[in-house]
Amino acid sequence: MASPQLTTSPSQPARPRVVIVGAGFGGLAAVRALAKAPVEVLLINRTNYHGFWPLLYQVATAGLEPESIAYPVRAILRRYRNASFLLAEVTGVDFARRLVQTSAGPVSYDYLILAAGSTTNFFGNDQIARYTMGMKDLNEAQRLRNHVLLCCEHAAAESDPIRRAALLTFAVVGGGPTGVELAGAFVELIRHVIRHDYPMLDVQQARVVLIEATSHILASFPASLQRAALQRLQQMGVEVRLNTPVAGADPHGLSFRDGSRLDAETVVWAAGVRGAPLADALGVALGRGARVVVTPELTLPDDRRVFVIGDMAYLEGYRPGVAYPMVAPVAIQMGEQAARNIIAQINDQPMQPFRYVDKGQMATIGRSAAVLDAFGIRLSGWPAWAGWLFVHLMALVGFRNRALVLLNWAYSYFTYDRGVRLIFGVGAEEQTVAEAVLRD
Amino acid sequence: MASPQLTTSPSQPARPRVVIVGAGFGGLAAVRALAKAPVEVLLINRTNYHGFWPLLYQVATAGLEPESIAYPVRAILRRYRNASFLLAEVTGVDFARRLVQTSAGPVSYDYLILAAGSTTNFFGNDQIARYTMGMKDLNEAQRLRNHVLLCCEHAAAESDPIRRAALLTFAVVGGGPTGVELAGAFVELIRHVIRHDYPMLDVQQARVVLIEATSHILASFPASLQRAALQRLQQMGVEVRLNTPVAGADPHGLSFRDGSRLDAETVVWAAGVRGAPLADALGVALGRGARVVVTPELTLPDDRRVFVIGDMAYLEGYRPGVAYPMVAPVAIQMGEQAARNIIAQINDQPMQPFRYVDKGQMATIGRSAAVLDAFGIRLSGWPAWAGWLFVHLMALVGFRNRALVLLNWAYSYFTYDRGVRLIFGVGAEEQTVAEAVLRD
Repeated sequence: MASPQLTTSPSQPARPRVVIVGAGFGGLAAVRALAKAPVEVLLINRTNYHGFWPLLYQVATAGLEPESIAYPVRAILRRYRNASFLLAEVTGVDFARRLVQTSAGPVSYDYLILAAGSTTNFFGNDQIARYTMGMKDLNEAQRLRNHVLLCCEHAAAESDPIRRAALLTFAVVGGGPTGVELAGAFVELIRHVIRHDYPMLDVQQARVVLIEATSHILASFPASLQRAALQRLQQMGVEVRLNTPVAGADPHGLSFRDGSRLDAETVVWAAGVRGAPLADALGVALGRGARVVVTPELTLPDDRRVFVIGDMAYLEGYRPGVAYPMVAPVAIQMGEQAARNIIAQINDQPMQPFRYVDKGQMATIGRSAAVLDAFGIRLSGWPAWAGWLFVHLMALVGFRNRALVLLNWAYSYFTYDRGVRLIFGVGAEEQTVAEAVLRD
Repeated sequence: MASPQLTTSPSQPARPRVVIVGAGFGGLAAVRALAKAPVEVLLINRTNYHGFWPLLYQVATAGLEPESIAYPVRAILRRYRNASFLLAEVTGVDFARRLVQTSAGPVSYDYLILAAGSTTNFFGNDQIARYTMGMKDLNEAQRLRNHVLLCCEHAAAESDPIRRAALLTFAVVGGGPTGVELAGAFVELIRHVIRHDYPMLDVQQARVVLIEATSHILASFPASLQRAALQRLQQMGVEVRLNTPVAGADPHGLSFRDGSRLDAETVVWAAGVRGAPLADALGVALGRGARVVVTPELTLPDDRRVFVIGDMAYLEGYRPGVAYPMVAPVAIQMGEQAARNIIAQINDQPMQPFRYVDKGQMATIGRSAAVLDAFGIRLSGWPAWAGWLFVHLMALVGFRNRALVLLNWAYSYFTYDRGVRLIFGVGAEEQTVAEAVLRD
């Protein structure tokens, strides 16, 4: 497994090597910002594609095929002469010997940018981790899609009304943007697709329940937009349960702190994210959400050659006592700043602290409905939705992906149909109807 | 699991129930032909989609996403008032009690059409079955896609030239249309994608080897087109080995009857198909290729209520002593004839024997290259390729799928790129780089 590219040759290469872990928004921004720098860049990622996670919920609800929100990393790197790629899982870092431990062997670095992102936070509750579904990558989204469609198939063949109701109850825990977007998408799936595909089912039985522990959804948005979003969700028929902390989960539903329970065969856990497992493996100080504490220059406090950015980094200063949120714009700007600070170190110039230019935030609720809060502008309804469509379409990497997504959106908008309602791939094999029947 | 739809009620329904097993070309043709008949149709399929298998090789070579050649069965059935769907695996038939045994319980029928298709024929060689890859459904195609892309990633990090050569050797066994199309697609993947994505690799090392046991490829085509196809493949750089029967397979390659061997990490078995496993489970007489022997009216010899059509059916008369080929046009026309014969039985009229209207045959070899043999016309090169594109695009079910495929084809044609080179889904999880490295 020893290749010239990977071995630590006694004589270091002429140009310093910058190893970037993670091909998300942050990692790719760093690659871009280092394109003209006198460095050799090695990007390491566990998959061979960049995932456009803001649209992941549409994959999970049969609106987009997984391929349309994934873009091959090597296709992106073609543009950068000084960058190469390694498909591998990073398991740890040997800071003393400047080695990244990977599933493909050790990789040496002169400068390191850790941008491994985040994972679902089950807050240490094994029950919830086992019996609810996360939605953080393509596999989880496809598994969710297959599960939801399979529940409908089972419901169509189920004579017991109690079981049928549970099969048609889609619960989403967490009133953040992901939870809100997912709940809205489930309603549209039921209204426009399931109703036509399963004429024998009474879709009035189908329920979408959005569960939030606090007193309001979209915590990071202004109150006026929180109210607008809540109103819209309720108009769409989503049962929004505020102030309802979850106590536990089991194979057939959720139990709440107030002692009540909800029978639901589909429970999505969108109630929290935390730093990627790699953060725990580093053996450094972690802040809230298992994110790595970094200096304003985005380095480890005691190793200025190691930068941590994006969801993985814990840095306060956004608002007093509040860390920068886990969103793409923060990751992108941190990636650019980390790159600039590496160049500064090479040129023996002082590093600059990270300054965030807030691009605002938005969340879509459903057909022609969204909330947008940017540059002092606060929009809801159709204009916000149009803005959301435009921004996300433009942000997608690659003409082909843009065209695919646009095609799917146009198709769904005008036909009210969802093209990708296929039970296939991850989660489809291990969960056949046969097994499901035996399970019951 | 007892639902009104599935139980055998003592009093049979007013309209006779026709159960159709398989949502392929044959099964769907039968549903269409029964749309206006006084019958209740229940279509049973193991997946919830119809797969357009003629384009499967393009999924396997990263040209199309799986979703673009799959269409939801329920979306198709919306058009037919008398048809319903059951997602289940059919394991056998109780002819005496007129029950279909399924993973979702027994299903009663008055008339039965078995159209479960075919599966890869390893001719009883367990080695070959274990160490080569079939390509008969979306899972196998996606697994092949992931495997090929992963081999390239390994090659990029491999220093041993022998190992690297094996990782870049793509072998296809079987010179039929599938083998020819796959070999051509592999060459284009190497020439136009791998060369750009892996600048550190010498693509001259990459080999595509097409292995055929007999003295000619495309056996069913006229000799002139066989020669044209062979010439074209060789021009493209495919190593075509005729008269080279395979003796066995192992994890790292193939061994041949003549004692030689080929080191290849990718070996696709396209050397034969046989009737679906269901055929063996029926306990009836089977013809060559484990296909069910049927009467000219397409029924079982001793049960006129049970029809077998398409790849599953063995019926001679195409040419003396030769059974109808396993192709879509035969399946479609058999589906229509079976439907007509069921209506005839209901009306106490005589059944009619199956008459095949030969629509000809075609195979694509690569960019602007194909062979076509229809209605006495024999074409090769660009015109045949254009004809191939048109016929397959028109045959695709659903506007959305057509648009997706057209978009991908146009993108690939003009950019020479392949959009879907993602290591994801079936086969991607169990086969990480880490494991691959440990395996070696």
